[in-house]
Amino acid sequence: MLTIASDFGTPYPAAMKGVIHQRTDARTVDVGHDFPRQDVRSTAFWLREVLPYFPPAVHLVVVDPGVGTDRNAIVLRAGDHALVGPDNGVLLPVARRLAGGEDGIEAFVVDETRLEPPEPTGAGSATATACSVSAEDGPASNTFHGRDVFAPAAADVHAVGIDRLGSLAFLESGEAAVDCDLPGATLEGDRATGEVLVVDDFGNAITNVVGDFLEDRERVVVNGESVPVGETFAAVPVGKRLATVGSHGYVELDVNQGRGDEAFGLSVGDRVVLEAGE
Amino acid sequence: MLTIASDFGTPYPAAMKGVIHQRTDARTVDVGHDFPRQDVRSTAFWLREVLPYFPPAVHLVVVDPGVGTDRNAIVLRAGDHALVGPDNGVLLPVARRLAGGEDGIEAFVVDETRLEPPEPTGAGSATATACSVSAEDGPASNTFHGRDVFAPAAADVHAVGIDRLGSLAFLESGEAAVDCDLPGATLEGDRATGEVLVVDDFGNAITNVVGDFLEDRERVVVNGESVPVGETFAAVPVGKRLATVGSHGYVELDVNQGRGDEAFGLSVGDRVVLEAGE
Amino acid sequence: MLTIASDFGTPYPAAMKGVIHQRTDARTVDVGHDFPRQDVRSTAFWLREVLPYFPPAVHLVVVDPGVGTDRNAIVLRAGDHALVGPDNGVLLPVARRLAGGEDGIEAFVVDETRLEPPEPTGAGSATATACSVSAEDGPASNTFHGRDVFAPAAADVHAVGIDRLGSLAFLESGEAAVDCDLPGATLEGDRATGEVLVVDDFGNAITNVVGDFLEDRERVVVNGESVPVGETFAAVPVGKRLATVGSHGYVELDVNQGRGDEAFGLSVGDRVVLEAGE
Repeated sequence: MLTIASDFGTPYPAAMKGVIHQRTDARTVDVGHDFPRQDVRSTAFWLREVLPYFPPAVHLVVVDPGVGTDRNAIVLRAGDHALVGPDNGVLLPVARRLAGGEDGIEAFVVDETRLEPPEPTGAGSATATACSVSAEDGPASNTFHGRDVFAPAAADVHAVGIDRLGSLAFLESGEAAVDCDLPGATLEGDRATGEVLVVDDFGNAITNVVGDFLEDRERVVVNGESVPVGETFAAVPVGKRLATVGSHGYVELDVNQGRGDEAFGLSVGDRVVLEAGE
Repeated sequence: MLTIASDFGTPYPAAMKGVIHQRTDARTVDVGHDFPRQDVRSTAFWLREVLPYFPPAVHLVVVDPGVGTDRNAIVLRAGDHALVGPDNGVLLPVARRLAGGEDGIEAFVVDETRLEPPEPTGAGSATATACSVSAEDGPASNTFHGRDVFAPAAADVHAVGIDRLGSLAFLESGEAAVDCDLPGATLEGDRATGEVLVVDDFGNAITNVVGDFLEDRERVVVNGESVPVGETFAAVPVGKRLATVGSHGYVELDVNQGRGDEAFGLSVGDRVVLEAGE
Repeated sequence: MLTIASDFGTPYPAAMKGVIHQRTDARTVDVGHDFPRQDVRSTAFWLREVLPYFPPAVHLVVVDPGVGTDRNAIVLRAGDHALVGPDNGVLLPVARRLAGGEDGIEAFVVDETRLEPPEPTGAGSATATACSVSAEDGPASNTFHGRDVFAPAAADVHAVGIDRLGSLAFLESGEAAVDCDLPGATLEGDRATGEVLVVDDFGNAITNVVGDFLEDRERVVVNGESVPVGETFAAVPVGKRLATVGSHGYVELDVNQGRGDEAFGLSVGDRVVLEAGE
């Protein structure tokens, strides 16, 4: 199984799927192609929450604001899974989760010059003549490594098998150079200071305060305002605010059948102080 | 085959797919994850129109504004198909269609305490320590039953086969308690009184007036305004309004290559009176 | 393999998938269902850029503003691929690419009256009684040929195999009547006059000027304003404009981690003059 996650929308993911199906008969599964655009941290968070539910697989991830710079393409082996993507931190939180910690991760760097590039059928003159990249750069385009580097690498990783990554000529042992800042919250007695890590498509503002903080509380003070604590959205009337423990284990600031981010006036990265109180 | 429909956008559907692929090698097909958010009635309408085109399959449906309340998770056997989702009415219209009527439906209620929960790889401390649900509630999160209840149930239904639902320990014979209001229109001579059932992504306003009403008419009066009747959008110039019979058999209020809902000033649930006249 | 591309959003593609899976066990791959709505030219461009990366396949394409008019449904054989869609030009640019030129394309016209229509399970009274299409029109709806014509045709093409199209009773040798205008740019010395062909989801404004024009230049004058030329988005600071050669080989007008279309004030079809200069 080969899963694909990106911020590409339509139609760039299709070029990646084509390349993958050219090189392997892997079953492909779309994790999603509407991850927050060029937002490495939010994507890293979501991947950490969703990929561990998959059976052993190769996971291709392309959220890559630094495409074309000298950041490496990397492959991480984490438990029975492999992760393929840019070395910008997006892979590390989920790799740690899958590997049971930092030590379980085995890292490889992709040598793009040794990767067999995709060969589209009947490339026309525009593509051919415009291919002005230098020999040193290899054959990849400078703006679409998803198609030209990451997808071929992921397909070849799948074809050879996660246990035999060392046999791939384009992989060199290495390290993930860039980490991802998914900060924890600070807990002092009855006060937690954290931030909004991500906002989901429903508008739920997901903080980095571990859900335990809400245990045995009926209300909580959020940035100075008291709101009810509920076990479910439906604990409050439709349209009303609440704090709850989300499915990922963190405190979420929500509205029943509405958008918590708007009702609380919070965006990704905003500071959140939770306090005991009525 | 196991189809998946939800209003989850990105990335929650991926967690459901992971859970399913952990438990079964079913071929999964995305029906769509952008159903109108928390809109049970529109989703019920669309499922009734699209799922009957599938071969026998298990259909997982999660549009669930009441997640975490005491509404049940149910499984409906309807003909050669099985439907898995919340007991909020979203499954019933398509179940009746697939089963050839109410009598053909066999209903089961999911006993969540007997359902083997999904086990993500290497769940970290946040998820673990935040897991404050009580033993009585079982292991499911209170906000993501798609991942923790419906996806596992659908996968296990697929694995055992539609003919052997009775052998699943977590299924009890029962009933669908909540129906879905997809009202019919009223026909009095040359006057039909109905409403807008749904608006599609193109902006076509789909009413509940059966298409027969337009037969042999060249024009029709819609809420007091006369518009042409066309067999196709292209029966009128680009940008112009018309009434037509949609692919589902109902009267639609459209604009050729434009949005009918805006041009007619109509939203879901709005009253529509169609009358004979020039 | 059977790929599916449309501008249908949710949920109409699911009806097409159902029809396909009813008729063939083909592996289906979503190319995307958010192609620019009813925009034949942009879709034709994207298909030309992405489909050549796929292995031999049947490609179903439904962007069809003329649905229900007398435009034909066509099947094009192009190399090892088959393309199925409306005769409105959307298939031709990619067919030429796949076939290595106009001469390699073999065209068939679909005789809808000889195509076995999809049969949904338990169609209810609304659909049945509203089916007022005349016998001459065949059984297809007038507004959803994706479900009633193109999907069945593509499935049957896949089932019989690309080498045996002539054996399908519903296919007649014919021609693609409508071409697609993907104009080239005009090059006069150090001046290129072209237009914006498409804008991608990132906001990159993709012109029809072949990338060669930027070779060995450090800056270029775009509609009178000088901007840097970069090999990658990251050649300029975040938020700054640049011209680059996109992954398809054309000059793109971009913003590093922003929207080029907005920053340059350009939309699809707008004239673009590129000139040498600092």
